[in-house]
Amino acid sequence: MASIEKGGSIATLINVFTVAPENQQHLVDLLIQATEKTMGHIPGFVSASIHKSRDGVRVVNYAQWESEAAFEAMARDPRAQEHMKAVSKIATADFHLYDVADTFSK
Amino acid sequence: MASIEKGGSIATLINVFTVAPENQQHLVDLLIQATEKTMGHIPGFVSASIHKSRDGVRVVNYAQWESEAAFEAMARDPRAQEHMKAVSKIATADFHLYDVADTFSK
Repeated sequence: MASIEKGGSIATLINVFTVAPENQQHLVDLLIQATEKTMGHIPGFVSASIHKSRDGVRVVNYAQWESEAAFEAMARDPRAQEHMKAVSKIATADFHLYDVADTFSK
Repeated sequence: MASIEKGGSIATLINVFTVAPENQQHLVDLLIQATEKTMGHIPGFVSASIHKSRDGVRVVNYAQWESEAAFEAMARDPRAQEHMKAVSKIATADFHLYDVADTFSK
């Protein structure tokens, strides 16, 4: 489970992958594997939540890092780059770092 | 606060807005206003979390609805359409409904 909260120093990475429907589940598996094997053990990792769109054409990784510096160190890690190379063969990624401006619950 | 959990019947709406940096804060304000005034009171609403990218060019609404039917009823609501019309003047939206495939926490 991950929590979305306003304020704090978390850097939220939202990575939106565009994928062909026949590759969607394979992409989900690659991202789960990458998180279990590598990303989840890198210092500064807080959480990662992998989402599949119901229409088959998107996958979103909603991830939280302790800081922008921790995210950048991960991105420079050769093991992380290896995973991202595999992913880039079947999907295009649009990733940005975010802050939570506000959150509302019922 | 919102929680991301695997399983369950929640329909997650991830709406990725592309915006010019000079309009980013205005878009955030419009989405907060829409949630406070309208979306948050529509049956089936669970949560909405508004995110601003640190590079200024994206805004993401990570929202949860009780079901796809609840989301669709909201999308047909004239008050919701009014808000979306205002938003569409300053941003383009890429929205899809998602399921959580898996979630990992430290």
